[in-house]
Amino acid sequence: MKIAVDAMGGDHAPEAIVFGTVQAAPDVDGELLLVGKESAIREAYPARLPENVRVIEATEVIEMHEAPVEALRRKKDSSLVVAANLVMQGEAEAMVSAGNTGAAAAAAHMMWKCIPNISRPAIATVFPSKTGRFVVLDSGATPDAGVQNLVEFALMGSAYAEAVLGIQKPRIALLNIGEEETKGNALTKQAYKALKSAFPEFIGNIEGKSLFKGEADVVVCDAFVGNVVLKTAQGIGDFFWYMIRDALEKRPMMKVLLGPILKATFSDIKRKTDYAEYGGAPLLGVNGMCFICHGHSNAKAIKNAILFARRGVQRHLTDIIAERARRLHAEEPEYV
Amino acid sequence: MKIAVDAMGGDHAPEAIVFGTVQAAPDVDGELLLVGKESAIREAYPARLPENVRVIEATEVIEMHEAPVEALRRKKDSSLVVAANLVMQGEAEAMVSAGNTGAAAAAAHMMWKCIPNISRPAIATVFPSKTGRFVVLDSGATPDAGVQNLVEFALMGSAYAEAVLGIQKPRIALLNIGEEETKGNALTKQAYKALKSAFPEFIGNIEGKSLFKGEADVVVCDAFVGNVVLKTAQGIGDFFWYMIRDALEKRPMMKVLLGPILKATFSDIKRKTDYAEYGGAPLLGVNGMCFICHGHSNAKAIKNAILFARRGVQRHLTDIIAERARRLHAEEPEYV
Repeated sequence: MKIAVDAMGGDHAPEAIVFGTVQAAPDVDGELLLVGKESAIREAYPARLPENVRVIEATEVIEMHEAPVEALRRKKDSSLVVAANLVMQGEAEAMVSAGNTGAAAAAAHMMWKCIPNISRPAIATVFPSKTGRFVVLDSGATPDAGVQNLVEFALMGSAYAEAVLGIQKPRIALLNIGEEETKGNALTKQAYKALKSAFPEFIGNIEGKSLFKGEADVVVCDAFVGNVVLKTAQGIGDFFWYMIRDALEKRPMMKVLLGPILKATFSDIKRKTDYAEYGGAPLLGVNGMCFICHGHSNAKAIKNAILFARRGVQRHLTDIIAERARRLHAEEPEYV
Repeated sequence: MKIAVDAMGGDHAPEAIVFGTVQAAPDVDGELLLVGKESAIREAYPARLPENVRVIEATEVIEMHEAPVEALRRKKDSSLVVAANLVMQGEAEAMVSAGNTGAAAAAAHMMWKCIPNISRPAIATVFPSKTGRFVVLDSGATPDAGVQNLVEFALMGSAYAEAVLGIQKPRIALLNIGEEETKGNALTKQAYKALKSAFPEFIGNIEGKSLFKGEADVVVCDAFVGNVVLKTAQGIGDFFWYMIRDALEKRPMMKVLLGPILKATFSDIKRKTDYAEYGGAPLLGVNGMCFICHGHSNAKAIKNAILFARRGVQRHLTDIIAERARRLHAEEPEYV
């Protein structure tokens, strides 16, 4: 197995990327291809790289705020394009990038194309819940999704939850603004019917307030809504920690006495809600494993993203999605 | 001033409603009209009602899960319809209900009609932020909103923030999945341009992760997205408290030692995030003040909703919206 890692993408690139790759190396039965400027990589990690980490030279870098498609066209020798090319040529099975999210998604989508019978890709983000974890998709790839897209998202999210997260018979739900079948906007009302007829594991609508109770394993929505949920969750998490810090700042004695104890007490909450635990989010529906990491990714996030990408390859996630999409396409009418 | 209160709506009706009304009475310079079954109201509050609280008999009750429009047609003598009628007849200036949200919104919308030049109503929900508070609208009334709706929501939310919440020159933002003007789905890309040309106070797009930093005072979105944000925020809040409790349960000694201190320390966080502080959310854009409360509302929530409704009437919120809508309509082209 070979996994291409975009060494130049991310706010802490190349250091965090190289360190994360080195940390992942012992657990990968295959080769990690660090794609980027060799001089910068060597400078970030002057020691000898592990046996199974190889540097692939790429002279250009796509910056975080470049317009994705234009940047891909212009920077043919960027670390991202070279990494995506390795997968396209069959020289790697997966790609991991913490760079420009739009550019990474566009590279995988445009260069690898969608899996047959999948019309658009989706980014699947893992969230913690009271009972474990759940996947929300799409959280960034397809903002104006139609019913058919949502059905495909359910299929892909379910395959991911089963093959990579190890959840048996994942329960699929539709993110909606009411629990009853008749609730929602034009899209979700139609999508409810389509999901119900396509998946025996479909458990109906789920509201935002129930997401974190662990009632569903795969939550389907369009990328606009999914991205708003993802970022609102981050925002509220930050806000909570801010309020806790603020409450302690106002009580200096309490801060001195309780600070360290609270830190220890809350460390598992921090861990549970740490985006770095999952490292990144897969772009599902394309011909190859693509893991997109947060721009802020540290070495731990990169390491974990590589290990999840490895698991996706080992468990043949792309083939599973292709096979299920073929079957669904044969059985089901198409929705607009 | 007269405010009609739906005594029968809500999970804890009529007790919580009657108690909340009695608590609000001393602060209201006018009359509170408790609409519902007189026998049930007297049973809930056997003591003498304050001078300025009067019971208006209504024999029927619309239940929480009835289909709104059908229920309104069938139950002409329900507490909700009778209360809405009082406003329609000019016998009250405002209505407060913790009953079936859809029925309350539909009653105000269908019976009172929209303010001229406002095409659809919106529910405005107040959230706490690091620096104060902000309003999100629409959070429930108009799921499939168009650009013109979002422009009207901005106008109404701004008038509410200024007149009722006392925020000078409220900053208006569009909830979106990126900060740049070019980001978003079809609706938000168009809405950005329309908002920019209509309001000098428009500060651009805001992402979910920045909402709670206090960067905007009025956040505009369609009801689907707004409702998802509202309920996700509730869900995450619950999840956080659950994790904190859980962390303490696992450390019984720490719970005994820290429990009471933590409770005191976090009481202001609880208060800041308590929905009951704002009591309810106004349905803006209709001819009259309508405050819709959470089904779980306790007496405090009802009291606060009544006091916010009073302020809306005192500050002539409906007239302000009507005047601004008239001016906007005269100046601006219409968006689809």
